Amino acid sequence: MITGTTRLYAIIGDPIAHVRTPMAFNDWFASRKIDAVCLPIHIGRDDLPRGWAGLKSMVNLDGFIVTAPHKGEARQLCDAVEGDGVHTGVVNTVRREKNGRFVGTLLDGRGFVRGLQNEGHKVEGRRFYLAGAGGAGTALAYALAGSGAAALTLHNRTRAKAEKLAAGVKAAFPACDVRLGSANASGHDVAVNATSLGLEPTDGHSFDLGSVDRDALVAEVVMKPDMTPLLIAAKARGHKIHFGIHMLNSQLALMMQFLGLEPTREGA
Amino acid sequence: MITGTTRLYAIIGDPIAHVRTPMAFNDWFASRKIDAVCLPIHIGRDDLPRGWAGLKSMVNLDGFIVTAPHKGEARQLCDAVEGDGVHTGVVNTVRREKNGRFVGTLLDGRGFVRGLQNEGHKVEGRRFYLAGAGGAGTALAYALAGSGAAALTLHNRTRAKAEKLAAGVKAAFPACDVRLGSANASGHDVAVNATSLGLEPTDGHSFDLGSVDRDALVAEVVMKPDMTPLLIAAKARGHKIHFGIHMLNSQLALMMQFLGLEPTREGA
Repeated sequence: MITGTTRLYAIIGDPIAHVRTPMAFNDWFASRKIDAVCLPIHIGRDDLPRGWAGLKSMVNLDGFIVTAPHKGEARQLCDAVEGDGVHTGVVNTVRREKNGRFVGTLLDGRGFVRGLQNEGHKVEGRRFYLAGAGGAGTALAYALAGSGAAALTLHNRTRAKAEKLAAGVKAAFPACDVRLGSANASGHDVAVNATSLGLEPTDGHSFDLGSVDRDALVAEVVMKPDMTPLLIAAKARGHKIHFGIHMLNSQLALMMQFLGLEPTREGA
Repeated sequence: MITGTTRLYAIIGDPIAHVRTPMAFNDWFASRKIDAVCLPIHIGRDDLPRGWAGLKSMVNLDGFIVTAPHKGEARQLCDAVEGDGVHTGVVNTVRREKNGRFVGTLLDGRGFVRGLQNEGHKVEGRRFYLAGAGGAGTALAYALAGSGAAALTLHNRTRAKAEKLAAGVKAAFPACDVRLGSANASGHDVAVNATSLGLEPTDGHSFDLGSVDRDALVAEVVMKPDMTPLLIAAKARGHKIHFGIHMLNSQLALMMQFLGLEPTREGA
């Protein structure tokens, strides 16, 4: 029950009707008997500075999730940025510190990494092939390199975007062997689609599935459908496959940790 | 269940922990299967302009209740003011219009009037004695005069405050016979305590109970305890009595009407 003492959390975006974060957060609060509630807050595309100031003024609001189109502007408005928010230029989770400052981070890529780990797939020391250098690709690239991937090969239709991303990841995580690649995904332990190809049943693949090593894992960021054309074909070829939804599901715990609602797991 | 389509309502105040509006609103929403939620929003005493701008930016927020200390400043920030908000200089209920404007009103006094009516006590044509010219007294004075009270006698410890209020009510509602009074409440149909006297069991009365006409109703704005020293003594003297809580309970329907969530009742 919401009372005067209930703490507030939110997800901000435009549009907002499609978001699922309130249900995920509120189920989580209910299962732990935490007196908090998560709300959908619709802030128009061009109105974030005003909305942000308002969120700051609400002293019983302890944090919020940021979704499209506000992730980049939110990064600029944060008083401090941590983790993958630093390099990617976007944040999706913001917490209020005791001194009132808003500190943001990006957990999309870390959610993907955690999702792999939760399904029993190591990231550290493995060689990743990554197709896509947009929002998802950027988040995954920094999170994979930052989580100890041995190598990261980036492929993007617009090559200049992949070049820029590769340079950024290389500079941030020099220990990772970051290279530009082609549609050929051979020589990697994991091949990941981080483009939007797969949302439609008639979509092609973002890389040459035939080139993927036989024992490599094929992973998706597309969540709907769970079996994308890529995963259907990969399964038929005998590959282990990894669903896009794991990234989202695994991110909830990371969000709760960043918001101070759950202790950080050892080694996480 | 809160989803991305849930409409938002709120109560803003400082402090906020004590408020009961979220429970009242959310019970009301639940009983009517309305996809909306009411939240407590704690906005600091000096931070309302920033908070107000934030509330404006939240396009799925359809309205809110205003409590101390923001009622006066909210009146100034509203794009338009209706009803008792016009003369009293304060608002406690604000709705968002389709064009985005925030329109406010004050329903405290109207809640008191509705509470009397719901308990079977007429207001129109009756003579009221009112002790107290603070926030509650001001709200009640305008609402009683605006609801057709034949006469209104105002008494306040600081006489200048009563004089100012009387002048305002007289100007707004010339049909009502508004006068300044003393502690003597004789010659009225209803005697109302609109001061904070009664919160403590050792509190005295704000007017001379012995002067009240035998068949007059004695009414309270103090809600806790329900039986104030004044009501206890009035009951012992054989008066009909009227609890402070009726004002709050009766206000919920008025708020819902102003917010467009319930049709206006005939003759209300």
